Amino acid sequence: MLSGGERAVARCDQLGKAPYSDMAEGLFRSYLSPAYVAAQRQLSAWMEQAGMTVRIDAAGNMIGRYEGQEAGPPLVIASHLDSVRDAGRYDGPLGIMLGIECVDDLRERQVRLPFPIEVYAFGDEEGSRFPAAMLTSRAVAGSLDPAMLAIEDAAGVSLDTALKTYPLRELSSARFADARSSGILGYLEAHIEQGPALEAANLPVGVVTGIAAQLRYKFTVRGRAGHAGTNSMRLRRDALAAAAAMLLAAESLAVNHGDGVVATVGQLEVRPGAPNVVPGEVRFTLDVRAPTNDRRDAVAQEIMAAFAAVARSRDVALSREALQDLAASPCDPDWTDLLASAALDLAVPCDRLVSGAGHDAMIMAALGRTAMLFIRCDGGISHNPAEQVKADDVEDARQVMIRFIEKLGDNFRD
Amino acid sequence: MLSGGERAVARCDQLGKAPYSDMAEGLFRSYLSPAYVAAQRQLSAWMEQAGMTVRIDAAGNMIGRYEGQEAGPPLVIASHLDSVRDAGRYDGPLGIMLGIECVDDLRERQVRLPFPIEVYAFGDEEGSRFPAAMLTSRAVAGSLDPAMLAIEDAAGVSLDTALKTYPLRELSSARFADARSSGILGYLEAHIEQGPALEAANLPVGVVTGIAAQLRYKFTVRGRAGHAGTNSMRLRRDALAAAAAMLLAAESLAVNHGDGVVATVGQLEVRPGAPNVVPGEVRFTLDVRAPTNDRRDAVAQEIMAAFAAVARSRDVALSREALQDLAASPCDPDWTDLLASAALDLAVPCDRLVSGAGHDAMIMAALGRTAMLFIRCDGGISHNPAEQVKADDVEDARQVMIRFIEKLGDNFRD
Repeated sequence: MLSGGERAVARCDQLGKAPYSDMAEGLFRSYLSPAYVAAQRQLSAWMEQAGMTVRIDAAGNMIGRYEGQEAGPPLVIASHLDSVRDAGRYDGPLGIMLGIECVDDLRERQVRLPFPIEVYAFGDEEGSRFPAAMLTSRAVAGSLDPAMLAIEDAAGVSLDTALKTYPLRELSSARFADARSSGILGYLEAHIEQGPALEAANLPVGVVTGIAAQLRYKFTVRGRAGHAGTNSMRLRRDALAAAAAMLLAAESLAVNHGDGVVATVGQLEVRPGAPNVVPGEVRFTLDVRAPTNDRRDAVAQEIMAAFAAVARSRDVALSREALQDLAASPCDPDWTDLLASAALDLAVPCDRLVSGAGHDAMIMAALGRTAMLFIRCDGGISHNPAEQVKADDVEDARQVMIRFIEKLGDNFRD
Repeated sequence: MLSGGERAVARCDQLGKAPYSDMAEGLFRSYLSPAYVAAQRQLSAWMEQAGMTVRIDAAGNMIGRYEGQEAGPPLVIASHLDSVRDAGRYDGPLGIMLGIECVDDLRERQVRLPFPIEVYAFGDEEGSRFPAAMLTSRAVAGSLDPAMLAIEDAAGVSLDTALKTYPLRELSSARFADARSSGILGYLEAHIEQGPALEAANLPVGVVTGIAAQLRYKFTVRGRAGHAGTNSMRLRRDALAAAAAMLLAAESLAVNHGDGVVATVGQLEVRPGAPNVVPGEVRFTLDVRAPTNDRRDAVAQEIMAAFAAVARSRDVALSREALQDLAASPCDPDWTDLLASAALDLAVPCDRLVSGAGHDAMIMAALGRTAMLFIRCDGGISHNPAEQVKADDVEDARQVMIRFIEKLGDNFRD
């Protein structure tokens, strides 16, 4: 007999290929696609087996409900059913399967909490079909800009058309906002870490204290292109050497700021880009994240000052374009403590960490308290078919979640 | 009345556009093209006006000959008639025009040297039509690999076909090697510097001591790609940060080695190259040049050691592919001294410098002594329509060349 953790992993594996994938080889499951519908049909059966009643909301999210002793606002346990192209099998689905396992455990033990539980399988978190992410949690949180409903996928299919041709329930963009929640007790999401911190610390799970604040820029460095043979070193204004010095300054400042602060130059283009020409122009992106808005802004300011100093000393021009500015989304401190104490009760090794990646939890925070549990993944690899989790870690996560839910019930009665 | 220097510049300007260019706007004159033929027709007239008899050799080079008192091997004064695409007007043609001006001056003063002078207008130096450079000086020097005759231009026209359809003389690839010289007294080439050293030192001309040795590599740095938000700084193996550290190490070592040593990373590509992904792989080129083979090899070895140290400390894999290995081509020390003393005689400010770029002189060195004179150009800009020279500098060059020829004549008699 499989443990709940093993079954959650096995179910993700089952959904990792056709007909639950739109790719013949590997996994790609995009919002409202045939693979998405097939996965929902299977999910519906699993939810019902766990004792839940199943519905689909106006945004195409599937929701399993497990009634409580009282009819008040539900505890939402959720993650997303969609995937990136050529995805791993656990980013998203694992959180849904764990929600189902938690409810299944309660059903088996005939436990009813003082509040209902709703397991949400969000339709779009990755933004891999339409050019916007977290569409369906935004619909639930009531923060979706109605203008977004006109967006089209790469094939030119509008969100409206995709909703109208969705076979499981009559959906329409006009009623998309009806997915809005009338209120929740709070929100719990389990997700693979997608990073190497838990593995490095040898921990199966981690309690997320919040989702990092983020800034993203595009910089252009303009020096002077010239012949690689005829321009002596001291007379050069090499745009790439300047960009390299900037990149290393950003790295060093992020390291100095310590835990939770990251700075990344992920994209860099050199012009003219010939082996025998000193680079005249370089364009690069900078992505800065930190646990709080203040720390993010502080490190960004230091980086900008360092960049300006490099530009001055190397006599190159530097210009900047802002691409993204996302505030930090802290998880609820009390629920975070409660999740950590649930792990402590069970002697599951656990630490607190900041999520550098965005999750539906940051959208759902608009509705109430949120808590997130990260699960260790192999090598921090994600968005890749090589994504892997250990079933033992997932079982630890399942037990911590159940303990958290029970403690929530105990506190509720107080 | 124009000075000889002014006339040389004016003639380059005249050749800088259609019909002497294959582009409607700007200059592109490739080997054996209609513009090339048109330029040769004009050149032939100028050579004849200067008192020379004109011939075209088996490689399509145009040669003007001014007889000496004796019939021995000629002093060759040369540069190239072809250009890169969207070229400046002086890179190449200016050296030919100065050769014609030197002869014209001798003719006007009815001076005959103890040796003949031949002004060569080489057909291909830039390699902008066929995928090989300095084809026609190689033919003259006897160092052209016959296999090269099968190469084709971007339109699929073979060198053989281009020679057969050349209208000024019957040419064929089978006889291309007939361009081989039967012996020269020596070789003199004037050329714009294509770099900023003379301008920075406020000198109109410079005596070239030799053409730099060159090494070119392509490196691949393999780290580990990962999510820019979830991979903490200390756990990263960022291929781009490693490449940046390598680049700056190469720059710093080249600077430490001082005059004449240059190291350039001109091409750099980042994979996967997304703003939110820590770079997993970077490929970049490194071009190292130095006045001598030993200095080139010493600095290259230091750079390799520094790269290996960066790779070790950042836990990335580094692999290397050799792209080019060109030995240094020193100019003749006696002739270099003679050229410098000619400048001194005329009080023309002048310094010695190494050419970081390749020139036909390095090919012609196989036939005998070589000397090269560089002429200051604005901002070191070349291979660009903005290429500029000062007519006064060109006039200085012309006088230094004539003085050099006369001193050569004096020495010849000794």
